[in-house]
Amino acid sequence: MIQRRTETTLERWLPAPATAPARLHAAMRYSVLGGGKRMRPLLCHAAGEALGANPQYVDVAACAVELIHAYSLVHDDMPCMDNDVLRRGRPTCHVEYDEATALLVGDALQTLAFQLMAEHAAAPDPGRQLAMVALLGQAAGSRGMAGGQAIDLAAVGMALSIEELEFMHIHKTGALIRAAVLLGAHAGAADESTVQELGHFANRAGLLFQVVDDILDAEGSTITLGKTAGKDAAQDKPTYVSMIGLGRAKELAAHLRVEAHAALDLCEVDTGRLAALTDYIADRSF
Amino acid sequence: MIQRRTETTLERWLPAPATAPARLHAAMRYSVLGGGKRMRPLLCHAAGEALGANPQYVDVAACAVELIHAYSLVHDDMPCMDNDVLRRGRPTCHVEYDEATALLVGDALQTLAFQLMAEHAAAPDPGRQLAMVALLGQAAGSRGMAGGQAIDLAAVGMALSIEELEFMHIHKTGALIRAAVLLGAHAGAADESTVQELGHFANRAGLLFQVVDDILDAEGSTITLGKTAGKDAAQDKPTYVSMIGLGRAKELAAHLRVEAHAALDLCEVDTGRLAALTDYIADRSF
Repeated sequence: MIQRRTETTLERWLPAPATAPARLHAAMRYSVLGGGKRMRPLLCHAAGEALGANPQYVDVAACAVELIHAYSLVHDDMPCMDNDVLRRGRPTCHVEYDEATALLVGDALQTLAFQLMAEHAAAPDPGRQLAMVALLGQAAGSRGMAGGQAIDLAAVGMALSIEELEFMHIHKTGALIRAAVLLGAHAGAADESTVQELGHFANRAGLLFQVVDDILDAEGSTITLGKTAGKDAAQDKPTYVSMIGLGRAKELAAHLRVEAHAALDLCEVDTGRLAALTDYIADRSF
Repeated sequence: MIQRRTETTLERWLPAPATAPARLHAAMRYSVLGGGKRMRPLLCHAAGEALGANPQYVDVAACAVELIHAYSLVHDDMPCMDNDVLRRGRPTCHVEYDEATALLVGDALQTLAFQLMAEHAAAPDPGRQLAMVALLGQAAGSRGMAGGQAIDLAAVGMALSIEELEFMHIHKTGALIRAAVLLGAHAGAADESTVQELGHFANRAGLLFQVVDDILDAEGSTITLGKTAGKDAAQDKPTYVSMIGLGRAKELAAHLRVEAHAALDLCEVDTGRLAALTDYIADRSF
């Protein structure tokens, strides 16, 4: 339901395909719509529900985070980065269009994320909303997601420690997952201690997501993943599976799942939907 | 003085070169600091002064606009776009570092622009500041600067009309110049009619800037420009000079200068510094 709601909202807020420049807008829509697990919007709405947020406020943050995620995938797939040709079961943006268009698509999707966060009511008051825009910036920027990508690039072919691998993932995927949870919370009546616990939960859930991703990448087929399976190993990128083996990676996932639930149990609000999402992340085979 | 102030402020707000990931942060600083005319910060502060804005508020908008400009240059210089090797008299970011780093530098500079606009006080109240963040997004995105880049790409080797060329420039460079002026005004006590006149002024000043750029590109040397001269002609890109000739391009510049001044004369505030900047843009030989 949240996934369909997110799809509809993104569909409405992305520029129409007939709006000039039409090819850029078609490529933006191609890169965002019609696929994706919408994990970050799901987490955002689940946190919003826990804090009694207006769902229309949460739509704004959920879509903004998803647009940041989508932009990062478009750029990450480009030849100078991961050079991948398949994403969500379809040709990547630079394959379907061209490299220059993919560059601009990513740029414009990022801009749109921040524009939406400022243009639509997303919080009980504008001061809070400004703080949320800043939070999204911190999560997406050079000390967050983009920084994680840089660490990832530098790590190719390197012998990382497990702590260094965790540091990379906390930035590369964890920062935005954390932002999704916290923005959902801030859209509601978040008090300081609940926000802290949710931040702790999000850190565990973000790592869990990554460990499961590494397991699926090692075990899965390209068809079920919707992206090229085994590419991390092929690119000599360190993964949890390559570093500690499949068995211990599964143990780690089980451990992170317990920690995530424990963090939720400390929140004095109804975190039932976040708990269900944690299990969904842990058990996913998609 | 404004240029030095902008340099100092950017220097302070960019992540320190020792902060991890250090190479990304060094490349971000390389791409922003130590060069550039800072035309957009100059316009932003001049508009702010006309509207009696707190200069510290204006610093925020001026730096945010300059970071958006800097990100667009880094991406525009990449091999899949203009493939340029020289910028501000130095190797472009992807030449000095590498393509993947240049991609992330541009991404992270854009994020930082929006983060700063949300993190620091930039307007008399948070509601106004949110509207300013939205305005920056509109100017930078697919219906503004990034859209202009897409139109520019599509125009290579094409026979454009002069109206189409103007449409491209209004987006590619004009949108951000307009945002610089309007953000400076909104940081102060901008009333509706003054903002309208300043918007009209900015449209003329932005086109003037572009026409002069085309004239300098045709006439100038690589050394005085600090970037590769004659590259538009070499890449078969339409310019004012290639379309209407050098003589009529100079007449057009003179006409736009008069129109820009006329728009300023309609403002009921002291626009002396904006008028001086208009002459600076028209007369520049740098």
